[in-house]
Amino acid sequence: MANTANRRKSSAAVPKSGVAGASLEKKAVTRENKRMRVLAKDLSRLAAENTGEAELCGWIHRIREFGAVSFVILRDRSGLVQLVLNGKCEYPLESVIRVAGEPAVNEKAPGGAELRVSGIDLLSMASGDLPYQVNADPVKIGLEAILDNRALSLRNPKIRSIFKVQSTIINAFGEYLRSQDFTEIKTSKLVAGSTEGGTELFQVDYFDTKVCLAQSPQQYKQMMVASGMERVFEIAPAYRAEKHDTPRHLNEYVSMDLELGFIESEIDLINLEKKLLAYIFEQTAAKNAADIEAWKDKGASVPDPASVFNAPTVPYEEAIKLANEESAKKKGPRIFDINPEAERYISAWAERETGIPLVFVNDFPRRHRPFYTYPQGVSGTMSFDAIFRGLEITTGGRRQHDYNELSQILPRFGLKKENMEGYLSIFKYGCPPHGGFAIGCERLTQKLLGLSNVKEASLFPRDRKRVFP
Amino acid sequence: MANTANRRKSSAAVPKSGVAGASLEKKAVTRENKRMRVLAKDLSRLAAENTGEAELCGWIHRIREFGAVSFVILRDRSGLVQLVLNGKCEYPLESVIRVAGEPAVNEKAPGGAELRVSGIDLLSMASGDLPYQVNADPVKIGLEAILDNRALSLRNPKIRSIFKVQSTIINAFGEYLRSQDFTEIKTSKLVAGSTEGGTELFQVDYFDTKVCLAQSPQQYKQMMVASGMERVFEIAPAYRAEKHDTPRHLNEYVSMDLELGFIESEIDLINLEKKLLAYIFEQTAAKNAADIEAWKDKGASVPDPASVFNAPTVPYEEAIKLANEESAKKKGPRIFDINPEAERYISAWAERETGIPLVFVNDFPRRHRPFYTYPQGVSGTMSFDAIFRGLEITTGGRRQHDYNELSQILPRFGLKKENMEGYLSIFKYGCPPHGGFAIGCERLTQKLLGLSNVKEASLFPRDRKRVFP
Repeated sequence: MANTANRRKSSAAVPKSGVAGASLEKKAVTRENKRMRVLAKDLSRLAAENTGEAELCGWIHRIREFGAVSFVILRDRSGLVQLVLNGKCEYPLESVIRVAGEPAVNEKAPGGAELRVSGIDLLSMASGDLPYQVNADPVKIGLEAILDNRALSLRNPKIRSIFKVQSTIINAFGEYLRSQDFTEIKTSKLVAGSTEGGTELFQVDYFDTKVCLAQSPQQYKQMMVASGMERVFEIAPAYRAEKHDTPRHLNEYVSMDLELGFIESEIDLINLEKKLLAYIFEQTAAKNAADIEAWKDKGASVPDPASVFNAPTVPYEEAIKLANEESAKKKGPRIFDINPEAERYISAWAERETGIPLVFVNDFPRRHRPFYTYPQGVSGTMSFDAIFRGLEITTGGRRQHDYNELSQILPRFGLKKENMEGYLSIFKYGCPPHGGFAIGCERLTQKLLGLSNVKEASLFPRDRKRVFP
Repeated sequence: MANTANRRKSSAAVPKSGVAGASLEKKAVTRENKRMRVLAKDLSRLAAENTGEAELCGWIHRIREFGAVSFVILRDRSGLVQLVLNGKCEYPLESVIRVAGEPAVNEKAPGGAELRVSGIDLLSMASGDLPYQVNADPVKIGLEAILDNRALSLRNPKIRSIFKVQSTIINAFGEYLRSQDFTEIKTSKLVAGSTEGGTELFQVDYFDTKVCLAQSPQQYKQMMVASGMERVFEIAPAYRAEKHDTPRHLNEYVSMDLELGFIESEIDLINLEKKLLAYIFEQTAAKNAADIEAWKDKGASVPDPASVFNAPTVPYEEAIKLANEESAKKKGPRIFDINPEAERYISAWAERETGIPLVFVNDFPRRHRPFYTYPQGVSGTMSFDAIFRGLEITTGGRRQHDYNELSQILPRFGLKKENMEGYLSIFKYGCPPHGGFAIGCERLTQKLLGLSNVKEASLFPRDRKRVFP
């Protein structure tokens, strides 16, 4: 039987025993295809070390022909590298090839080395009718063309950078929370109704009934706190059936949610979010320096993690006052609410005063928050928003955990107790004081990189018109 | 302004500067509520070190009254701890309390220590009508009651264990792949149609049109490989509108997906999955020993990570033959396909022969695999399933990456080229040989713990009848 299974080159034979294969060794990567494939970024080291013939795989990024010799720039996931070919390159741009040859030091080549090619295999021929130059400025390609053809647009290293940053953000969010004893949960996105009331929901035909796409894991997070998990987080899609098409809205987005028990007020949550953001910034700065650099022309930068702790917390009424002062300076209109304009004003104010364009607005009035928000004083709530670089990236707060208080407040929000028994049951058998918040993954990505539209920070954004690809 | 923000006990004052707050210090956990809350698991250490008064928060798990003194077992996220109270405990079981007192060594108490309580605060009173004993055997509570009230059922440490294991699985999956240079992606779950054909889809009302819930991120993963990301993974919900209600099916499940470029055959994928599973097993054994122990009566155990590399790879036809041999021994019926029964047979065979109940079946016939599967010989494919403890936990394979080959094969699968242009466009401008697979998160959790129904491994499972809570 072993014979049959091993009929192909890449053998299925039992590898070296021991858990070595399971450990997190970076070195294993380049050997995985068993042919000593190396990455573009490693070629200069190999050339310097004189390690002998190497193999590269990737996309033909650029071709320059000089009579007997051609210089081909090959692109792989790690970057660009120069190939030197005898004769012409027979394949069109963006074709995928595998080449073997001798690495050689060449200070004029990108990365300081080149591969002198002795053999070339075509792995995939590209059609000659590229709809746009892969390396064009994203602004010139245009958002619609970028989104219509992700398999092509992401070949532009600048565009791909967005999602390398996003991958770090997602990982750092979970990594920090795990270090603080949070459990990662996965909850259903198919729910019977809404806990929020207002916002519109997408309906799903579910066998013989109708369900909705969850707009947040709110009630599930709370249930997990009450269940004794105490600290939970989830990274998952969330849905809003809102019709507006703005540079700050998505109908489907990645919500990075958390909830924890035994807090006293939203101030505990704000302090947690500061530590979380500082960790995310630390990780992004460490892992994505080149990706951030690529968007420098749009104002990309990672705030100093230490500066996050300088971010001010401003009560709602005071934030409105501040926004109006800023607006008056610029002869802008009067501001009555924390609208997008106010967010930009108080963010600019925070940057001027503290060095970081991050501000926490707390103490939202009752009328602006959902029924489950914990009260503060007569008409306030223990709730907050985080505004980063002029955009709300977080909404959160302490929740009402008392069954009786909750039952009594429902009618004031037009809700009936008999329709809310499922939600109320969370608080029936002992639920600690708790709260939580969510960070919009695409919005944080957008603001770190200075992207003008949040859709640029979503691989496959959904809006009223776009459900493709 | 600082005054206003700091009006409450938990101060918003700028904390110690520096990134210290952002680093992954475990110690910070118990100080987060600023009152020196400690966890149950830490009490014996504190008692031994004689560190003075401590505060505990949690749920009242058990009460025993002895006249002048009561012994209360308190439960928090870390475990159980004994409290010694003067007089009676006034609150019913499952109420949430905060207690202060002196830690003391007591070898008879769980964990070897107890708290001699000097102060007690009620944080949340539990209703007296608990529908079932929190600590009952899960079998006695019954699956329906467990799922109907997660806020209660997860208080049973044994039931909560399931999701502590699952949290580790999710993390280990991503951690291993990141170490191998994979990028984490988040793709849309709202798609225009199906790449698979057959399987039924849930329909969503999306503004003025209809879309479907994605049954897999298949085409998006492939697009990302073609885009030059080369190696991607996603952990996200997937949807199957199948009507069957079995212990192995969920209509919504967590799919741990990956895809990578520059492979030669499914054997590369099988080797990658072995390393991945070995890492997941290593992490689960290291982090969840007590959780696994809790399910020992159901056969829970984590395979030796090294043994994963002994798992055999058996071609489809041979697997059928093996299953029939096993079936014949037990006077079972003739087997014509890799059905659930065959999965159990060949898994048992693998365990007998190699010591691990894990087997990879490859070389599935063309008729059993989707159109995009890469061919092998005349009628085979470069595809595989992984079967672990009698259950298929993975389906994967190399994909056809050639535009022309794909276009030609579509009619054989009843598909029209004009309807598939979106998918075909992935292969138009250079796409490397590639493939991938997915691991069903709930199924892997189920099989590690010996759960009889996959629904036990989903916090909020969805089946034909259940959309609540």
